[in-house]
Amino acid sequence: MSGASRTRILLARRPVGAPVAADFRIETAALPQPGPGEVLVRVLYLSLDPYMRGRMSEAKSYAPPVALGDVMVGETVAEIVQSNVPGFPPGDIVRCHAGWQSHAALPADRLQRVDATVAPVSTALGVLGMPGFSAWVGLDAIGRPQQGETLVVAAATGPVGATVGQVARLRGARCVGIAGGARKCAALIEEFGFAAAIDHRAPDFAPALARACPDGIDVYFENVGGAVFDAVLPLLNRFARVPVCGVVATYNDREADRAGPDRLPALMGAVLRRSLTVQGFINNSFIERYEAFHAEMSAWVRNGDVRTREDIIDGLANAPGAFIGMLEGRNFGKLLIRP
Amino acid sequence: MSGASRTRILLARRPVGAPVAADFRIETAALPQPGPGEVLVRVLYLSLDPYMRGRMSEAKSYAPPVALGDVMVGETVAEIVQSNVPGFPPGDIVRCHAGWQSHAALPADRLQRVDATVAPVSTALGVLGMPGFSAWVGLDAIGRPQQGETLVVAAATGPVGATVGQVARLRGARCVGIAGGARKCAALIEEFGFAAAIDHRAPDFAPALARACPDGIDVYFENVGGAVFDAVLPLLNRFARVPVCGVVATYNDREADRAGPDRLPALMGAVLRRSLTVQGFINNSFIERYEAFHAEMSAWVRNGDVRTREDIIDGLANAPGAFIGMLEGRNFGKLLIRP
Repeated sequence: MSGASRTRILLARRPVGAPVAADFRIETAALPQPGPGEVLVRVLYLSLDPYMRGRMSEAKSYAPPVALGDVMVGETVAEIVQSNVPGFPPGDIVRCHAGWQSHAALPADRLQRVDATVAPVSTALGVLGMPGFSAWVGLDAIGRPQQGETLVVAAATGPVGATVGQVARLRGARCVGIAGGARKCAALIEEFGFAAAIDHRAPDFAPALARACPDGIDVYFENVGGAVFDAVLPLLNRFARVPVCGVVATYNDREADRAGPDRLPALMGAVLRRSLTVQGFINNSFIERYEAFHAEMSAWVRNGDVRTREDIIDGLANAPGAFIGMLEGRNFGKLLIRP
Repeated sequence: MSGASRTRILLARRPVGAPVAADFRIETAALPQPGPGEVLVRVLYLSLDPYMRGRMSEAKSYAPPVALGDVMVGETVAEIVQSNVPGFPPGDIVRCHAGWQSHAALPADRLQRVDATVAPVSTALGVLGMPGFSAWVGLDAIGRPQQGETLVVAAATGPVGATVGQVARLRGARCVGIAGGARKCAALIEEFGFAAAIDHRAPDFAPALARACPDGIDVYFENVGGAVFDAVLPLLNRFARVPVCGVVATYNDREADRAGPDRLPALMGAVLRRSLTVQGFINNSFIERYEAFHAEMSAWVRNGDVRTREDIIDGLANAPGAFIGMLEGRNFGKLLIRP
């Protein structure tokens, strides 16, 4: 937060395996001046999300990588502090992709208004934003949980996982959440209404998951990958659906981390024998359903049917450490930076 | 073919890895007498199909295993030779699951009439039967090839693969077939109308496949698994569909054959980044579409739009050897035994 300067965090080098602090560089520079058709925004909240790990690498993906020396990409909720655009006066709150920085000059067509009367504006980056939409549309388009079915989701106190569990419960499914540690597991039951919570760090994780799913698993919402998937696969019922929204556990993998045994034949055999559907998706492929999502989710958030938890960290300089910790599961709720 | 006795092939023991002759036992016994409501049939054609490898193992699957000492299961086209059922007179041709034997007594509700005026009755076990329906419905329900898209299928001279390629071509897709050896590859182009044919035994198989798919792959109809899948995966386009109908290449695998590297993370990463759909299916899950299949396919077969190739072997005693060879890709066309 500054008067005439802005702080930014740049990609200093591409990580090998897990990102470390030296992969980022912080710099302070003069405030940009908004050009014609632009506004200057001050970032109130920066969203940190696992997909950013992909942007740090050069590997081909659904979006281009961040160039070395560029500001790290990221979605933000921001306040307009200076405006050259009628209809976007200073003081308005908008959602935009300002990235990892305290201020940005942006054209007005890159701004979405945030309605502060629905819920705290930070939720535009969580349950009422990209993570919430990913959860909702992954269930709506692929998972389709039915009354009485069993759904399992991991990283279940995270913004996607917690929303998946609550939406599926509201659709009539029995939801089993997976999280790391007793504190998060307690929150799954008490805050988010999961029917059961399993600690993936427990030595008996796989049998505990099996016990929690006596009727098998009909929907596994995949947002972590790794060892959790191994425990889930044998429990998937015939015609089970696996929306693949993320595989955080593998984002830091290097080639050497891919030692055998080869688990692909077992997966394909299960896909065949049990008529499984494994389907990856990116939320913006379903952008035509966004309004339906926003209407339903806003109502649920307002009336308390869907609850949220935020993990807010002050100071942009703490963003790299918070991001590194998130990839290790250290956040507890939607991770936000308040620059 | 006998007067008062029947020949049968029993499962003598469960194979470890690839089946061998000693896993089967042939026996001759008295002809059964059809009971009330039953007919006695003489098998004209026994269909040999890769799924039978699964039935020889105890592993849980979508159908129970064959018990040791029981007749091997299998679908057949047969002639009624003795009948206790009005409306099913001797001489009628039916499709039934008589298994690996020359004769069987079966209740009338397990018989389906075969219309010999549409095509040779043996096609009721191929393009107008289970393999044809698997191909058609896998495309109809999952693959959904669109005009101008690229489809790839392996084992492409087999009854499923050849039908997949021809149906997809009739739907407007460009079809690339994979088969073993020059003779089969020539047949793909000349008999079945594929746009390109790739020999999976060629040392440059993967680059050759890539050259044959300059616009990537939109539908990969999976009926083999193994190394073909490794060559296909990098070529799959965003939103590609992978109906999984079989993974023959892995049916004989033992645990020791599953050495690393682990290919699962690469698959799940691709599923996520390219919004792939990998969906297993069993044709009888879609039985409500059978009539639509049969009507469309009968017309195509009659007018020559869909061509078929059969690999017919005489003598039930040759069934084990033919089956073992099929798992190694030695058949050329729909494999049938004429007892």
